[in-house]
Amino acid sequence: MTTSSYTPPKVWTWQAASGGQFAQINRPIAGPTHEHALPVGKHPLQLYSLATPNGAKVGILLEELLARGHAGAEYDAWLIRINQGDQFGSGFVAANPNSKIPALVDHSQHPPLRVFESGSMLLYLAEKFGEFIPTNPAGRTECLNWLFWQMGSAPFVGGGFGHFYAYAPEKLEYPINRYAMEAKRQLDVLNRRLAETPYVAGEQYSIADIAIFPWYGGLVKGWLYNAAEFLQVGDYPHVIAWADRLLERPAVRRGRMVNRVMGPLEEQLPERHDASDFELRTADKLAAQG
Amino acid sequence: MTTSSYTPPKVWTWQAASGGQFAQINRPIAGPTHEHALPVGKHPLQLYSLATPNGAKVGILLEELLARGHAGAEYDAWLIRINQGDQFGSGFVAANPNSKIPALVDHSQHPPLRVFESGSMLLYLAEKFGEFIPTNPAGRTECLNWLFWQMGSAPFVGGGFGHFYAYAPEKLEYPINRYAMEAKRQLDVLNRRLAETPYVAGEQYSIADIAIFPWYGGLVKGWLYNAAEFLQVGDYPHVIAWADRLLERPAVRRGRMVNRVMGPLEEQLPERHDASDFELRTADKLAAQG
Repeated sequence: MTTSSYTPPKVWTWQAASGGQFAQINRPIAGPTHEHALPVGKHPLQLYSLATPNGAKVGILLEELLARGHAGAEYDAWLIRINQGDQFGSGFVAANPNSKIPALVDHSQHPPLRVFESGSMLLYLAEKFGEFIPTNPAGRTECLNWLFWQMGSAPFVGGGFGHFYAYAPEKLEYPINRYAMEAKRQLDVLNRRLAETPYVAGEQYSIADIAIFPWYGGLVKGWLYNAAEFLQVGDYPHVIAWADRLLERPAVRRGRMVNRVMGPLEEQLPERHDASDFELRTADKLAAQG
Repeated sequence: MTTSSYTPPKVWTWQAASGGQFAQINRPIAGPTHEHALPVGKHPLQLYSLATPNGAKVGILLEELLARGHAGAEYDAWLIRINQGDQFGSGFVAANPNSKIPALVDHSQHPPLRVFESGSMLLYLAEKFGEFIPTNPAGRTECLNWLFWQMGSAPFVGGGFGHFYAYAPEKLEYPINRYAMEAKRQLDVLNRRLAETPYVAGEQYSIADIAIFPWYGGLVKGWLYNAAEFLQVGDYPHVIAWADRLLERPAVRRGRMVNRVMGPLEEQLPERHDASDFELRTADKLAAQG
């Protein structure tokens, strides 16, 4: 039982037993735990990921780029099983020293170029292909404002609200209150913005939408933490309408499937190596339904 | 007394009384609370800020740009008193709809251009002046990797560790443990990187250093949360050596003073409107010492 009489020690020490659902993958030290080379497929871009909200961003952008005919955006998406510690293998750590999914390696560069942090990957790909980021200075700046907003805000939703509401080993009132309030504030920031413009950065669909959708679209659609009622997401009608607009895009629906191993079977695609992999999933689904 | 028997309600409701030191400035709704136009000074760049770690980043970069002779980086820095709600004034919200410091408006653009989120401001200024970001694709990508790493990681240090260790109304063991472990992991990520290269992005000092220094330099120098012993920052000698190297730069020392209203008097400069303002602080200090 936790009580308010706790006094922190002078020096923090690692007690590996605590931590709830993710206790096994949270560590106070960085670096690899084992030797393991990453697989490399046939395409220019190699993605090592899992369809968490941060992972989904990159799958969506890659599918959007392919939908616009950029063959250079062809990619292999390899599954990183974070609950089995794949992110601590030596190859993954070389690609992302932060040991978090997603990680991307661009083999069209010599030597191959590592890109880590989902926001960095979105900007890298948008600039590489000249798509999904406005070219005029004012539009570009507003797009980047919101891209960075997402990167700095979502840790309060995922590592904060989601952790304490859904995953922590015990329910603690103060952290749940703290992060529920902040999640609602952020949803309101977004709702007010989307009352002004159809897309987050303005008139044009951009990497700002792609970054924000998996997190805040996930909240209002009830995909994340089963918290739609708790957070009263009906308060944010402009966010809901925007999320529904994005979901009409086939590339968004495909991108969400990439490296997905949970949820409805027809939305799962554990690895992606070819455009036809999505069609096979549909065939599987049809076969299963008889 | 908090106990593990807490069960969240079906619908979260705002109880304005809770929240500790920052209870008055945390709200579940966005948007302005009152009409208040922002002041505008004589320089092209108008900064509205406070010398928190996120605020300090921008002061440091502006001082670095001026030190390299970019007159277009001249700026007025106005104090935003977040404990008095200045960030909820209508003018501030128009500049940053997220109501967080820092916010920047570039009056050299027509119409004036808003830049919000400290990471977006660093990238905007680096690109505007062509400084402190590598020009080759590999170097630029690595610099942005670490810039985004800082943006996505520091919320676990500030909103997580700092809040629960230093500011929350009661000490809670589980959140303190959770975030202390993550703060140490992040320090170790950085320490391993700085064992390889003198600056975070490589051989060249860049906006990645400027973004990371106020947070992680602040931890190892003991400026943040008085937690140097608790986190055993001596475990990270490469971070300490790098922070000391940055502190040798006059622009870093000046930048840290901008909009600072706490700490040693000679390090405080509540507003900055001219390069000579720093000298006046030194004169004040000498006068006080008699």
